[in-house]
Amino acid sequence: MSETKNIMDYETVALDENGPAVVILDQTRLPGRTELIRLTTAQQIWEAIYLLKVRGAPAIGVAAAFGMYVLSEGIETEDYDVFLKEFQKQKEYLDSARPTAVNLSWALKRMEQVVLSNRDKSVEQLRSLLRREAIAIKEEDIRVCRAIGEYGLTLVQPGDGILTHCNAGQLATSKYGTATAPIYLGQEKGYHFRVFADETRPLLQGARLTAYELHSAGVDVTLICDNMSAMVMKNGWVNAVFVGCDRVAANGDTANKIGTSVVAAVAKRYNVPVYICAPTSTIDLETATGAEIHIEQRPAEEVTEMWYRERMAPEGVKVFNPAFDVTDHDLIAGIVTEYGIAREPYTESLREIFRKKQEAQASEL
Amino acid sequence: MSETKNIMDYETVALDENGPAVVILDQTRLPGRTELIRLTTAQQIWEAIYLLKVRGAPAIGVAAAFGMYVLSEGIETEDYDVFLKEFQKQKEYLDSARPTAVNLSWALKRMEQVVLSNRDKSVEQLRSLLRREAIAIKEEDIRVCRAIGEYGLTLVQPGDGILTHCNAGQLATSKYGTATAPIYLGQEKGYHFRVFADETRPLLQGARLTAYELHSAGVDVTLICDNMSAMVMKNGWVNAVFVGCDRVAANGDTANKIGTSVVAAVAKRYNVPVYICAPTSTIDLETATGAEIHIEQRPAEEVTEMWYRERMAPEGVKVFNPAFDVTDHDLIAGIVTEYGIAREPYTESLREIFRKKQEAQASEL
Repeated sequence: MSETKNIMDYETVALDENGPAVVILDQTRLPGRTELIRLTTAQQIWEAIYLLKVRGAPAIGVAAAFGMYVLSEGIETEDYDVFLKEFQKQKEYLDSARPTAVNLSWALKRMEQVVLSNRDKSVEQLRSLLRREAIAIKEEDIRVCRAIGEYGLTLVQPGDGILTHCNAGQLATSKYGTATAPIYLGQEKGYHFRVFADETRPLLQGARLTAYELHSAGVDVTLICDNMSAMVMKNGWVNAVFVGCDRVAANGDTANKIGTSVVAAVAKRYNVPVYICAPTSTIDLETATGAEIHIEQRPAEEVTEMWYRERMAPEGVKVFNPAFDVTDHDLIAGIVTEYGIAREPYTESLREIFRKKQEAQASEL
Repeated sequence: MSETKNIMDYETVALDENGPAVVILDQTRLPGRTELIRLTTAQQIWEAIYLLKVRGAPAIGVAAAFGMYVLSEGIETEDYDVFLKEFQKQKEYLDSARPTAVNLSWALKRMEQVVLSNRDKSVEQLRSLLRREAIAIKEEDIRVCRAIGEYGLTLVQPGDGILTHCNAGQLATSKYGTATAPIYLGQEKGYHFRVFADETRPLLQGARLTAYELHSAGVDVTLICDNMSAMVMKNGWVNAVFVGCDRVAANGDTANKIGTSVVAAVAKRYNVPVYICAPTSTIDLETATGAEIHIEQRPAEEVTEMWYRERMAPEGVKVFNPAFDVTDHDLIAGIVTEYGIAREPYTESLREIFRKKQEAQASEL
């Protein structure tokens, strides 16, 4: 279905109860077409994640969680062990779609935990609990993004220039985005930020998604190519860099969309602080440093063919096409989470963030 | 005409004596189509330069020089003053095609000087002298590029990794290129360099031209997006950066294709030396620092539409699209010219290069 509504009226990931199905906004078609698609099979969900129809670490987590609930409705058994075995098989399959983002594994593990810790329940009850957990993951995502926005907003002033890379926007989450959350909350308060969106080759998430959603929301956004960041910073137009992340290691090293470490090296040169907006679900204390993070390599055609139509590099040329890179922690001025802002030394400050999280969760119980 | 010959068999800019006409390889069609076009009018030559059908500072200079000769054949007068006036009018027009590259003005001034210093000659003799001067500019370009290659080759070892940005290759000059000259000369000696070519958004000269000509010449070249430079350097794959330039200021600040200063900031982070390959014709001692260099702004559609076919950013979004940026001299490890390698402090070393040039020219006389 093709519509003309404002992009911000759509949900990035939603649950269609009549079916059931995961409904996503196909992000590979933006900004040209606004197309919602229904996913009902494991292969459809896997492909939607692999082909970046749904992307952004938090949104992938929500899609995978809804996906496991939808798939659980299709496991035709009343036997717990049969159900668990099939559930885990499909969970492993979805987990293989993208290796770098920790949210995918994190959300899938949370869903698996529902099954593992409710051995006494009927399969029907399990499905109901899975549905509730997936909805909780999505609602948490919205609360987390808003909290990140509030903390992030303390780092900038009205009128500031903000540069962002890739899309850690509403389209990467359930609402607000992570890197864009301070921008949207600032917009609500009447702050006038001047945002620069890196186009983010090869898949142009910055041009197609970030420029699109910010422009659509009335934010003052200027699109630049990735190689223009030094010039806008040298011109004094950028006061802060906000980016999302796919995985933060215990020492603060951060894997995010390829090019983030280029922005960070350039920002260092021009004394612009770089802030990583990171839900605690993307912080992986089990990973000591960035060197341990597996970086996904993507097909050469993403670089050599635009929209798979016109070839723009010679046949047979070698291509290096990593999806992510690691930004060393010493280039990061702060990691903004829903429990506050971590600063160097991250090995301590990130643990402190998790202590706050545990306290908050304990007081909720 | 569309052919299947090796790209290296073509001349970037040539003079068709039967006509006469400037014959160029249309670089906006590469790598998909190899198309030679004949330019005979001032507007055709201006457009070929403005639309980047011929590009690269040295090649633009050669095209403009041939262009002025070709146009001189069309100035129908026997009167010196009428000829001079018309010649200067067309020279000013061509000079307006691109503001940043100094070679354009430099070559046009050289051609004008032929007319100014031969007031006693007939118009027919002037045309003959202009033709000779244009051919001399092209032959000098070839000698200069080869000399830059020889000096550049002293800065690297067989097997080294070399990163280059945009196209300062054979396609940007009459032969060898500037940044690629050490690579081609190394190739002749059996060195095995591993070259990384930045694709160079928005017009993809790295993907379409550099990757193409190096691949065609049998060089081991890997295409990367501009935002992958940090990752290949962090991996230890790059021993040196070689880039061309459009204008070098007296203090060493260097204007080159947008993104060069991003590469330089990243290289600084990873302790990789950055070498600017600069014919002395691109060194402008009249320009004190990079701050005085006028940076050309290009149309937004170069960023928002790929090959002017498919839109990849929202309608109405603001775009910043500078064609060049300035790399500060402190990020530059050396400036490789045809008279040797200048190092910090450039204000002195570049003047020394020009002293050597004057000595060489004096000994030729």
